[in-house]
Amino acid sequence: MSLTVVGSIAYDAVRTPFGQRERMLGGAATHFALAASFFDAVRPVGPVGDDFDEASWAALRTRGTVTDDVEHVAGGKTFFWSGVYADNLNSRETLITDLNVFETFAPKLSPASQDCDVLFLANIQPDLQYAVRKQCGRARFVAMDSMDLWINIARDSLERTIREVDCLILNDEELEMLTGAPNSVLAAKELLGWGLTAVVAKQGKYGAGLFTREGYFALPAFPLEEVKDPTGAGDTFAGGFVGYVAAAGGEADHATLKQAMVYGTVLASFNVEEFGTERVLRLTPDEITERVTDLEAMVSIEDRPVALRG
Amino acid sequence: MSLTVVGSIAYDAVRTPFGQRERMLGGAATHFALAASFFDAVRPVGPVGDDFDEASWAALRTRGTVTDDVEHVAGGKTFFWSGVYADNLNSRETLITDLNVFETFAPKLSPASQDCDVLFLANIQPDLQYAVRKQCGRARFVAMDSMDLWINIARDSLERTIREVDCLILNDEELEMLTGAPNSVLAAKELLGWGLTAVVAKQGKYGAGLFTREGYFALPAFPLEEVKDPTGAGDTFAGGFVGYVAAAGGEADHATLKQAMVYGTVLASFNVEEFGTERVLRLTPDEITERVTDLEAMVSIEDRPVALRG
Repeated sequence: MSLTVVGSIAYDAVRTPFGQRERMLGGAATHFALAASFFDAVRPVGPVGDDFDEASWAALRTRGTVTDDVEHVAGGKTFFWSGVYADNLNSRETLITDLNVFETFAPKLSPASQDCDVLFLANIQPDLQYAVRKQCGRARFVAMDSMDLWINIARDSLERTIREVDCLILNDEELEMLTGAPNSVLAAKELLGWGLTAVVAKQGKYGAGLFTREGYFALPAFPLEEVKDPTGAGDTFAGGFVGYVAAAGGEADHATLKQAMVYGTVLASFNVEEFGTERVLRLTPDEITERVTDLEAMVSIEDRPVALRG
Repeated sequence: MSLTVVGSIAYDAVRTPFGQRERMLGGAATHFALAASFFDAVRPVGPVGDDFDEASWAALRTRGTVTDDVEHVAGGKTFFWSGVYADNLNSRETLITDLNVFETFAPKLSPASQDCDVLFLANIQPDLQYAVRKQCGRARFVAMDSMDLWINIARDSLERTIREVDCLILNDEELEMLTGAPNSVLAAKELLGWGLTAVVAKQGKYGAGLFTREGYFALPAFPLEEVKDPTGAGDTFAGGFVGYVAAAGGEADHATLKQAMVYGTVLASFNVEEFGTERVLRLTPDEITERVTDLEAMVSIEDRPVALRG
């Protein structure tokens, strides 16, 4: 299988109660690719500027990720984002968003990237997502992210794009905002009616829920004593989730997607243990497998029925 | 086994986006007793006034609940609470709190109530909880609830009480507030150090987490298309959770408590489907068993390993 991801590649400046970084590699496509590369050959598509350094190229190429479609825009600067997290890490304030080369980004996919089996459309303007999706006609499984901004200013474009993909991965509040439904259950029901195979409701520190026509599944976040930096957790989750589907052959039945939720959750749990890509960059397959086993044991239930009084 | 619960018995006036009730039976001990009575003989302890009507007595006595220690305070009025929920049901505003007979409540336990195997201390002033706990020396499993108010104004009393019980059931933010820990995992670790066997972190619509010395478990809320009224959900959860422990013999090992979490979650899910006690009052054992089976199937994971790339 082969896996293409289209999205941002960035430098981030981040401050949390547990430390700060002035300039670290980030961006949705970066976090996604690092996680997904444990599962499949990944081709990220996104622009970088003259300031994109050798260490960043090397990081992107971890586990053989092909960077042929990472476009170096000569004379440009890489997308830069700066933010500060609240004490409980539940909210963050954006200080700086310099789109730079990302402002005029028009994804150009090589034939090899277009020929992917699995495609992830990270959060970019929905008409661009739509155009990419149309270029990848052979893809067996297409998932996408989005954000409140596009729900507010480009709802029709967003809906058109969602109707062309298999899986929508969104924060639960955004699912409610998108559909006007009072809860994720009704929001997901509405969205499955648009033709989606699966809706993933991200719930931050509480984990994530999965809705398909076959049923519902939910998984808590892996319990961590210390979370240092949540930046990129959602895209790392998506990398584990979509990467797993690719490794499993692109089939998106409910049982496969449940297992994909476990891998997404585990990858995200490593991501937040340190700043930016630091932890995932030195992550090993054995560490992933061990935490998958731990998480599955945690949530397993031994049936112990008791007699109920009538 | 026998199960005693000490707490409020009330009339509630509630408005949610899905309807309203001017005066319905409520209170922590009421919701707890209705849920727990599916599992064991329950003895609620709490005060009511002259206005407590026959239908309310009959509701309390569902499935043989013994109301000998429900104290009728002559000349008094029953605790009255009135509140309005926000559109998404995530927050509520209290309009009226008339403590009435609850203001001077000093729990008086008959020998039969003191002789319980399992005890639940619903949210009341922690010194009262402590006194009750000391009267029930034979209890094998004692669980308690509390609230932010007592953390703020009676922290020492609260800590003294917590150190005398087996299980603390609290909202996750309150666990963090109580311990000063930045997350539930560290908060629970601290509290297990106080001598607790188990800490349950209630997460509202996201479900609940369980921490014991043996490990961690978490369970999502049962997915519902319509939630009409969350009032009493926490106490109904506690009734199912503590009730299950009683039915299982009062043993509080990790596997038993995991299963107790399932029953608590299922009971709470019925409670919120309608206003106040309306749904749980006509609930049947078969409906509980069916939803327990459904929830366990939802969260079960079929292991489907894939080869990870190194």
